[in-house]
Amino acid sequence: MNLELLREERPLVHHMTNEVVMNFTANGLLAFGGSPVMAKEPEEVEDIASVAGALVLNIGTVRKEDIETMIKAGQAANKAGVPVLLDPVGAGATSFRKNAVQRIVDEVDVAVVKGNAGEIAALADIPLNVKGVDADESGDAEEIASRAAGKLQTLVVVTGETDVISDGQERLTSSHGTPLLGSITGAGCLLGSLMAACMSVEKDHKKAALFALEFYNRAAERAAKKVGGPGTFIPHLLDELGKADG
Amino acid sequence: MNLELLREERPLVHHMTNEVVMNFTANGLLAFGGSPVMAKEPEEVEDIASVAGALVLNIGTVRKEDIETMIKAGQAANKAGVPVLLDPVGAGATSFRKNAVQRIVDEVDVAVVKGNAGEIAALADIPLNVKGVDADESGDAEEIASRAAGKLQTLVVVTGETDVISDGQERLTSSHGTPLLGSITGAGCLLGSLMAACMSVEKDHKKAALFALEFYNRAAERAAKKVGGPGTFIPHLLDELGKADG
Amino acid sequence: MNLELLREERPLVHHMTNEVVMNFTANGLLAFGGSPVMAKEPEEVEDIASVAGALVLNIGTVRKEDIETMIKAGQAANKAGVPVLLDPVGAGATSFRKNAVQRIVDEVDVAVVKGNAGEIAALADIPLNVKGVDADESGDAEEIASRAAGKLQTLVVVTGETDVISDGQERLTSSHGTPLLGSITGAGCLLGSLMAACMSVEKDHKKAALFALEFYNRAAERAAKKVGGPGTFIPHLLDELGKADG
Repeated sequence: MNLELLREERPLVHHMTNEVVMNFTANGLLAFGGSPVMAKEPEEVEDIASVAGALVLNIGTVRKEDIETMIKAGQAANKAGVPVLLDPVGAGATSFRKNAVQRIVDEVDVAVVKGNAGEIAALADIPLNVKGVDADESGDAEEIASRAAGKLQTLVVVTGETDVISDGQERLTSSHGTPLLGSITGAGCLLGSLMAACMSVEKDHKKAALFALEFYNRAAERAAKKVGGPGTFIPHLLDELGKADG
Repeated sequence: MNLELLREERPLVHHMTNEVVMNFTANGLLAFGGSPVMAKEPEEVEDIASVAGALVLNIGTVRKEDIETMIKAGQAANKAGVPVLLDPVGAGATSFRKNAVQRIVDEVDVAVVKGNAGEIAALADIPLNVKGVDADESGDAEEIASRAAGKLQTLVVVTGETDVISDGQERLTSSHGTPLLGSITGAGCLLGSLMAACMSVEKDHKKAALFALEFYNRAAERAAKKVGGPGTFIPHLLDELGKADG
Repeated sequence: MNLELLREERPLVHHMTNEVVMNFTANGLLAFGGSPVMAKEPEEVEDIASVAGALVLNIGTVRKEDIETMIKAGQAANKAGVPVLLDPVGAGATSFRKNAVQRIVDEVDVAVVKGNAGEIAALADIPLNVKGVDADESGDAEEIASRAAGKLQTLVVVTGETDVISDGQERLTSSHGTPLLGSITGAGCLLGSLMAACMSVEKDHKKAALFALEFYNRAAERAAKKVGGPGTFIPHLLDELGKADG
């Protein structure tokens, strides 16, 4: 995975995403080296998705009419060979969300699904207790990642205390990061955007996802050392995302 | 009011809120100890509102179609015994907003209404000069709070230089805070979210509202001492919201 | 241009804007001295636009149905003598956006159009290579500004390394600023809001636009000296916008 190349190319990442975190996502991706575009008008999503480096579909605040538009954008991305990342935020919280993400994975060729254990379990029909959009960490993240990857035939990233990447055969884990990532909104959403940006320059999506995950977690660790709480963590995390890794 | 209990339970607060302040609200509530969920799709709001610890209805950027959905969510919350807080942002600015909040208080059993003097006066039909979404502070906040509480049969919180809480009989006031709260967007919206979170663990809503108000204002006072303006105030306010009171 | 007068009057600036940057825009305008209102419900936009000090139309995340509402608000502003600023974000990226902004300039009397070279070129039908919402800087910004101003019969502001203001006859340029403005989302959107606020108190819109541009760029230069990257730049920029110029 070549970060310098990414920062030279500044890949356009088309987001149809969570309204809560749009600003944070855009600033985080800009700092990292990508070019965020947020657009959800049905008349233009195909035009944008098909010229983008990657497409992120995040159902955090999705409405019924947006599902069709996400599928339209996803299919345009598929036709153009643009990788699609799905973030099934709160998939286990309501049947509306569960149906929404299942329609998306049925109708769009999704390259990577990224979520917490509860969200991924909901997609893969593994029963779990889910409270709101955040799942209990009670499931076995590694088991859930493997089973979901096999079932969905995609790369699966399960975030949590230990993050897991699985393609159904191989399993990679990472235990970096800081609890502060859990105390701000949109930390997971931004990780998805960085992964998408990496996928646009690194065709081995497992390598791309792992690079983004480790880079992000190390940036967060560095930021955490400089701050007094979740509020000051946010600007420092953005600063660190703009630096070289290490 | 037991803050430790709240931070252990991390109550889910369902927001149908102002798009301008969603990110700030979510981060502020997370720091304080709650779990924010923002969702406004008609097909899922009842599912979420009925399992939440509290529901916040904020009309800051409301559209016509959202009013029905807010009422639907509010009635589901009522049925499930989940307290509802209404923030009538800019209620006096347009007849659309005034009608919207009046429909909500007619059809939903609202536990607390929180706003500035102009907003509360518009709800309670006390004539006042209102400019945009921020009212002139010309009315008598204490008088407005009492009359509105009597008329609406709810707890009323009027924010301003002195904040007033009234249930129509008893009146509590607080003069803490900092002018910096008036120089950032969403300071009042976030206060509503903290009150809602407190109401989910403290059944005496007057105590819950007063605790949130005093905690918030003291956190803001501490943050104000560390910063050079409204921009740096924001992250420090979030940091302080995550600490113990005092 | 009298900044003290502006800070005394705190002009209401009605925004129909980009969802990604609403919070940053609102906080930036508050710090500078204006009063932001974001509202896009068709039933109330005329009421708000006609009592505002200025109206900002920004198509960053516009949907089809919002175009009609923007025109409605724009025409109400025109009737009331309220200046309208158009920010044609990504106008060259899709035919949907190009048609949207052309409908707006056809049906609304726009006082100022502000965008980067690619966006303004798209409006003025000068062919340019455009990538996503950010244009290549390959066009001649001064040439584009002059031609667009002549064609659209409005004041035109082209932002870039050197910012250009043109009314078709006179051309003003400014080379202040910092590369950090290009590394955060919404820097251009916020500049539009400050210009709009200035236009509400300074009837010579060229003076108003130049004042806002220079003030903003100098505030950004001061902020840049204090920070370690784009994340910490944001709060410090907001702080500086609240200070006196110089």
